[in-house]
Amino acid sequence: MPEQPRARYAYLGPEGTFTEAALRALVGDEDVDTLPCADVVTALEKVRTGEADFAVVPIENSVEGGVNATLDTLATGAPLVVVGEMVVPITFVLAGLPGTALADVRRVATHPHAWAQCRGWAARQLAGAVHVPATSTAAAAAHLADAGALAGYDAALCSPLSAERYGLEVLATGVADNPRAVTRFVLVGAPGALPDPTGADKTTLMVHLPDNEAGALLHMLDQFAVRGVNLSRIESRPIGDSLGRYSFSIDLEGHIAEERVQATLIGLHRVCPLVRFLGSYPRVDGVAHRQAPGTSDADFIAAREWVEGLLDGGT
Amino acid sequence: MPEQPRARYAYLGPEGTFTEAALRALVGDEDVDTLPCADVVTALEKVRTGEADFAVVPIENSVEGGVNATLDTLATGAPLVVVGEMVVPITFVLAGLPGTALADVRRVATHPHAWAQCRGWAARQLAGAVHVPATSTAAAAAHLADAGALAGYDAALCSPLSAERYGLEVLATGVADNPRAVTRFVLVGAPGALPDPTGADKTTLMVHLPDNEAGALLHMLDQFAVRGVNLSRIESRPIGDSLGRYSFSIDLEGHIAEERVQATLIGLHRVCPLVRFLGSYPRVDGVAHRQAPGTSDADFIAAREWVEGLLDGGT
Amino acid sequence: MPEQPRARYAYLGPEGTFTEAALRALVGDEDVDTLPCADVVTALEKVRTGEADFAVVPIENSVEGGVNATLDTLATGAPLVVVGEMVVPITFVLAGLPGTALADVRRVATHPHAWAQCRGWAARQLAGAVHVPATSTAAAAAHLADAGALAGYDAALCSPLSAERYGLEVLATGVADNPRAVTRFVLVGAPGALPDPTGADKTTLMVHLPDNEAGALLHMLDQFAVRGVNLSRIESRPIGDSLGRYSFSIDLEGHIAEERVQATLIGLHRVCPLVRFLGSYPRVDGVAHRQAPGTSDADFIAAREWVEGLLDGGT
Amino acid sequence: MPEQPRARYAYLGPEGTFTEAALRALVGDEDVDTLPCADVVTALEKVRTGEADFAVVPIENSVEGGVNATLDTLATGAPLVVVGEMVVPITFVLAGLPGTALADVRRVATHPHAWAQCRGWAARQLAGAVHVPATSTAAAAAHLADAGALAGYDAALCSPLSAERYGLEVLATGVADNPRAVTRFVLVGAPGALPDPTGADKTTLMVHLPDNEAGALLHMLDQFAVRGVNLSRIESRPIGDSLGRYSFSIDLEGHIAEERVQATLIGLHRVCPLVRFLGSYPRVDGVAHRQAPGTSDADFIAAREWVEGLLDGGT
Repeated sequence: MPEQPRARYAYLGPEGTFTEAALRALVGDEDVDTLPCADVVTALEKVRTGEADFAVVPIENSVEGGVNATLDTLATGAPLVVVGEMVVPITFVLAGLPGTALADVRRVATHPHAWAQCRGWAARQLAGAVHVPATSTAAAAAHLADAGALAGYDAALCSPLSAERYGLEVLATGVADNPRAVTRFVLVGAPGALPDPTGADKTTLMVHLPDNEAGALLHMLDQFAVRGVNLSRIESRPIGDSLGRYSFSIDLEGHIAEERVQATLIGLHRVCPLVRFLGSYPRVDGVAHRQAPGTSDADFIAAREWVEGLLDGGT
Repeated sequence: MPEQPRARYAYLGPEGTFTEAALRALVGDEDVDTLPCADVVTALEKVRTGEADFAVVPIENSVEGGVNATLDTLATGAPLVVVGEMVVPITFVLAGLPGTALADVRRVATHPHAWAQCRGWAARQLAGAVHVPATSTAAAAAHLADAGALAGYDAALCSPLSAERYGLEVLATGVADNPRAVTRFVLVGAPGALPDPTGADKTTLMVHLPDNEAGALLHMLDQFAVRGVNLSRIESRPIGDSLGRYSFSIDLEGHIAEERVQATLIGLHRVCPLVRFLGSYPRVDGVAHRQAPGTSDADFIAAREWVEGLLDGGT
Repeated sequence: MPEQPRARYAYLGPEGTFTEAALRALVGDEDVDTLPCADVVTALEKVRTGEADFAVVPIENSVEGGVNATLDTLATGAPLVVVGEMVVPITFVLAGLPGTALADVRRVATHPHAWAQCRGWAARQLAGAVHVPATSTAAAAAHLADAGALAGYDAALCSPLSAERYGLEVLATGVADNPRAVTRFVLVGAPGALPDPTGADKTTLMVHLPDNEAGALLHMLDQFAVRGVNLSRIESRPIGDSLGRYSFSIDLEGHIAEERVQATLIGLHRVCPLVRFLGSYPRVDGVAHRQAPGTSDADFIAAREWVEGLLDGGT
Repeated sequence: MPEQPRARYAYLGPEGTFTEAALRALVGDEDVDTLPCADVVTALEKVRTGEADFAVVPIENSVEGGVNATLDTLATGAPLVVVGEMVVPITFVLAGLPGTALADVRRVATHPHAWAQCRGWAARQLAGAVHVPATSTAAAAAHLADAGALAGYDAALCSPLSAERYGLEVLATGVADNPRAVTRFVLVGAPGALPDPTGADKTTLMVHLPDNEAGALLHMLDQFAVRGVNLSRIESRPIGDSLGRYSFSIDLEGHIAEERVQATLIGLHRVCPLVRFLGSYPRVDGVAHRQAPGTSDADFIAAREWVEGLLDGGT
């Protein structure tokens, strides 16, 4: 009997990143192949080329905002869709070679976003310490474990998983200027069968606005409002060839299987030069959306049947 | 071979009214049976009971505004639909018994709306003359012809057709404070097959607003705006059991066979407690509506097909 | 010592109309001179000419809707302002000459609006009876009392006050198809000092829309919404020289002494070709408006002071 | 006679950055003191502490979007205001130690944003080359010049100015995946006298939305639309303590000295929990805003005077 091949998950590596933690939370006990990648673009491309079935990448941080590489890679190129999400609390550890004393730390390697989230802590606890940028928090840890005294820095700000994975000594825990900081990760796959609606779903879109039209953003948002569809995230991105032209990355509350979401997509498609559907998937928090009166599937179906009756001469 | 029965048209009579003039313009050379009725309600009821195939009644005057009896009779009771419209210029003649001199006219009978439209003329030309209200302009003429000196008044303000029909002498022509005054009449039938779309159509609706909701009118109008549907008439009517609750009688530019009109009706049906469809019919002026970008049938169909493709796993 | 002259009140007469009842309710025990007028226009003109200090006229009926003559006379000509309002329940009596039996009534005189409100009752209780239009319900009663058997009709549908005033016998009481029917009357004066705000006020406006602008009504209503100002009445009136152009008669909740009302008026004045202020006055029902967050006088004043501070280099 | 002290300009250093190029373009021939800073936060803080009179920092890149550190540092802490802007085309040079051949370049240092903008070029011209993150493009160049073969990389992607300043050899010019890429820089000062309006100005704001309110973004944007104020940039930023709460960084077309901008600010202040004014300043492109009918200063003043007249009993 042929064995079911194991699903392959690309992720923003190296091993030990917060992204790997998100991946583990998403797959649970499932036995999967994991492919650490050097950056978000590479991880997503592996799904496009078929080298991976899924990719796990960060999309939004509660302190830093949207992850541009993820937003922009989803927005252009071969189609990809989000099929799940995970939220992971972001608190760092300061990790050094065994025997390092906190007082001796002068140079700290980490990803610039991580540094931005610990700047206040570093000013208080490591006065005068300098930031050495790394391509990821895990890379900072890995290089330190690997190069030792020649690494060019004394400690890495990284995830607890990284410190453990690379055998570093934890010099400080719970490092974060904002102790409630979280990052949202998305599970991305190739287009195909959509996750079933659960009643607590999100849909992700990328929308271009009509050029040179005053109030274009207002009119675009009206397409949502008139069908009672709420947004849970909206983020502008430059379209790329000039200032002053923006696309919008949007998460709405609801699943494309729902009538009000379909009606909103139809409205957007009519009035916006470009709309890209980037998936409908269960919300990690399981919170059902607030449904305004007149926006249930039954309301839409009854209204449509009424109009069909009118076309047949009914009343 | 059985003969096709002649269509029966009820109208606001008696013979000679502006309504009869509208009816003649609507039917052209067709040979029809005409049924003059004492009032608008009676004329419309004859369609409901099957005594007439159609009714012709005034719906709107450029000076006086909406004709309440027409609006309210269409809005409640057994369904009726508008299938055509006609606009007739409203200028009156002052008509008396043969031999009457303009200077002798002291009492003038006419419908109160007609009087309102000639008040200025009367003040200038018939200083001191008194208005005697009549149920219609034609009734004023008919009664004068019939009762003569016992009619209780000296002249009738009526249509040229009435003066001719009842054998009265025209004492003054072109009587109107506003020489551009017109009345719009509608041709009303029973629900059934709708007139074909012509590209220059109107659709008439009656819509109740949700109670106790600030901005309910704004939200209702948004259902039109978001689909690029223009209104050519909007008129409030009390709902009837208190002040402060209104329904709206609306003419929109377009035919229910058009996608954007259907989408608007679906939206209204979802959010308004009551929507009554009162017909789609060719505009008498033949002016095609202005079509905003993204609101053609093709735009709607393409958008819907895109969403259907997404539901099948497409992009 | 010179005596304070008694205030002179013009009203829609003759004596005994519902309008006179409204006037009595408005003035209470005050000793005033009353001037019955043949129609609404005449009553309002007496304020313009100075022959009266105030006029009391109907503006809106819960069954028939707006009173066009009142709306249109306020909307054009020398300025007038509403300074008060009164709501009067409208139930009629059927009144005849002493000795008339209900079963003998064949012809019933009354104002056409009154007839419209009693049509159902008449069909049930006076099957086959005919309507004889009169210029007012009181005039129908007065003429019957005066002309007796020569009046041309057997009974008048009029107010209880009219039946009493003209010595007619009441044949039926509580006549009304809708027992909750009411008419709202307004007390109109010359421009000058405004009534003080009470916290439960209305402001009446007449507004023209910009021509040829899709969504003009929506944009006009937005001027109210954005300042949290609710409408309690909106009614379209033809502008008078063609179909398709409308002005709007509007009552809003609030007093021009309030910041949010002033801001709304400023917005309307900027974007509408014509705005006429027709008075701020206490609501007869004393119901205070619902005040949305951020729309109190204090909110406006704080916001303005903040901006003034910014202009001075503050933050 | 005491000498006027030279103005001190902090900027995102080190010497040779695109930011320094922007600074030079902003000050022109003026003789100023320049203070290169390690990061955006440090540069802005120097204005807060008084160590600098102005700071020049990037705010937006046509490829990468908003510069979070700038947006977030302006949004909180002691007030700062934008007093000018400059746009600089972003094309890089690849610079190495004298004698380096393009074919030998294996490791390339630059700021991650710069790398993101040259990734395609690198894949084509430097197949297999690895990115070494640096804190700025100029720092990559400076360290290479300083450390030579011990720098840990072979070349820097930096501005032409950096290559020249640090004595590196240019291995490739015009490096950019998008040859039209530009970065917008802002000149930031302490609150105080505002730049005079020029008729072609921008105003920068930071606005928080009310919590838990469906349509809050739509209502906020309506405050702009109703006064005819266009946005030239809108960008969301997480508020920082959770996902799902956003502030918006906004550039609007106009100067706070203009009535329509003041009215918009007053409206925002009323309905948003927090509004921060971040300056009005001339647009670098000198393009005057499109002024909708009814939104000129004269329109506002006339409307306000009309309302003031009404309060005095006028009409």
